[in-house]
Amino acid sequence: MNQSSFLEPVAWALEQVEQRLHEKADTQHEALTEAIEHLLNSGGKRLRPALALLAGAMLGADPERNVSLAAAVEMLHTATLVHDDLIDGSLLRRGMPTLNARWSPAATVLAGDFLFARAADLAASTGSIRVMSLFARALMTIVNGEVVQQLFLNRRSLSRDEYLRRIHAKTASMFELATEAAAVLACASEETVTALASYGREVGMAFQIVDDVLDFAGDPTHVGKPVGSDLRQGLVTLPVLYFMESHPDHPDLQILLEGHVHDASLIENVVNAIRASGAITAALFDARQHVERGQSALANLPANDMRRALAELAEFILRRNL
Amino acid sequence: MNQSSFLEPVAWALEQVEQRLHEKADTQHEALTEAIEHLLNSGGKRLRPALALLAGAMLGADPERNVSLAAAVEMLHTATLVHDDLIDGSLLRRGMPTLNARWSPAATVLAGDFLFARAADLAASTGSIRVMSLFARALMTIVNGEVVQQLFLNRRSLSRDEYLRRIHAKTASMFELATEAAAVLACASEETVTALASYGREVGMAFQIVDDVLDFAGDPTHVGKPVGSDLRQGLVTLPVLYFMESHPDHPDLQILLEGHVHDASLIENVVNAIRASGAITAALFDARQHVERGQSALANLPANDMRRALAELAEFILRRNL
Repeated sequence: MNQSSFLEPVAWALEQVEQRLHEKADTQHEALTEAIEHLLNSGGKRLRPALALLAGAMLGADPERNVSLAAAVEMLHTATLVHDDLIDGSLLRRGMPTLNARWSPAATVLAGDFLFARAADLAASTGSIRVMSLFARALMTIVNGEVVQQLFLNRRSLSRDEYLRRIHAKTASMFELATEAAAVLACASEETVTALASYGREVGMAFQIVDDVLDFAGDPTHVGKPVGSDLRQGLVTLPVLYFMESHPDHPDLQILLEGHVHDASLIENVVNAIRASGAITAALFDARQHVERGQSALANLPANDMRRALAELAEFILRRNL
Repeated sequence: MNQSSFLEPVAWALEQVEQRLHEKADTQHEALTEAIEHLLNSGGKRLRPALALLAGAMLGADPERNVSLAAAVEMLHTATLVHDDLIDGSLLRRGMPTLNARWSPAATVLAGDFLFARAADLAASTGSIRVMSLFARALMTIVNGEVVQQLFLNRRSLSRDEYLRRIHAKTASMFELATEAAAVLACASEETVTALASYGREVGMAFQIVDDVLDFAGDPTHVGKPVGSDLRQGLVTLPVLYFMESHPDHPDLQILLEGHVHDASLIENVVNAIRASGAITAALFDARQHVERGQSALANLPANDMRRALAELAEFILRRNL
């Protein structure tokens, strides 16, 4: 994260998280250890751990358990990415080769499973059964979302509601987990737990919308993958949905949505048309609304540095790499 | 399980386990629900839950939490089978089509992940953080073992020690989890926890050795797969190791171990040679030793019906389908 002065209150704890993540895993083979190190060093911004740490520190959670929670969230996130990349056949993430680009599918499945186990172990070290349950539920939500996306989504008739459900499952549920579990760890009131869950969910929704916008409007060297990657894979995101609403008969987009098309000029046409339309602005407006809802959820919480940092972090989501 | 009168003390609890396993999962798509039902109804003998229930009941664990534990163990077991079958490309298990025989690899990976999440949720409902940690550690052991087996095992020079490590990871660790976690749930002394862990581990070792023997000596209609399946897949098990010790230069076996050979008569030759040799008896002798070690571990535990049932269950392992 650049210019992330809002992370100062938890800078020390973030270092602790790195240590927990990199603790010598009990693997019986060097190659598995190396693969895990590669995954953990692949340029993750540690946004989810930062959220857990800030939320926990704001509410007075035990620092050590809070670090366990933050590390567990990042580990679970990494585990889901391993299986996602395998399933999507993605060869690059954040500009680095994915595990499945170098390992067999069998080994990649197992590496993901191993990370699930490490995430569960870290989550257990929070000492909170309720946190454990939140982890299990979050994983169910994420996997459910992936199953729907992989097997059952009619890409051509995706509604905005379905899109929102998908990005909640894919992204916002993990952000929600990070902040909600931190409130649980801090033994906060149910009202506060709900507020933190809302904050995390809304920030997560904004994060994914911005991510989807960056696929069209971002600098490819920063984003780590070529412009229009989602569309190339047949993945319909919010900018596309807005564009379809204003251009229901755009011929190139129709062709693209029929199936996996690898005609570079066709994709370029659609990407340029979307960039030139109001779709990007409309999507970013939605992202801003989610951020504002997230910030509102903080209203009744302790007005300390951490709360200010959470509010700033939400703003940062909108600015990143745009 | 046939003739399983030793299960009577926990028959009611086993029904509760079925209910917990089949509780309407929170899936967002019928196909995932159906797949999970299919997996749970695929003829599993519920041996692992029975072990957890008997051990817990012997030591006075809370019945409801004990049922959660038993269901969690079976769910974790089922989850690992889904990924194992995918990785091995197995199309049949217990005579029924595997999930990967009907679903895409992507969907199969996700179905397994979903079951991991359900297992974690059930494990959390035991209310014991230590039990959660045991689950996470068991999964790490299992996955580690699979990674070693998939990627790094030199099949031609497998030692008996390596075989024992493999079957501990693959099978005995889950049996150990079932009985050790039950003792933890019952707030038993550390001595008792260790004794129950030993019992489960030894019974699990015996179970896998018998399973590996059944691949040569079993009735295929009971075993649910053709005779010599392991060997066909290049998997070297204890009967093969004993046979290699007494017949180091057997030409057909050498050819078989060079790689995946699909010459039916070659495999038949080797299977018949192994059956005719003392290898089966030697392997079964080892299985009996594990059973006896498991039974000895029960010596200082409460001499009630459940302890007798655990001792009988260990005997049953040796008799099944032989």
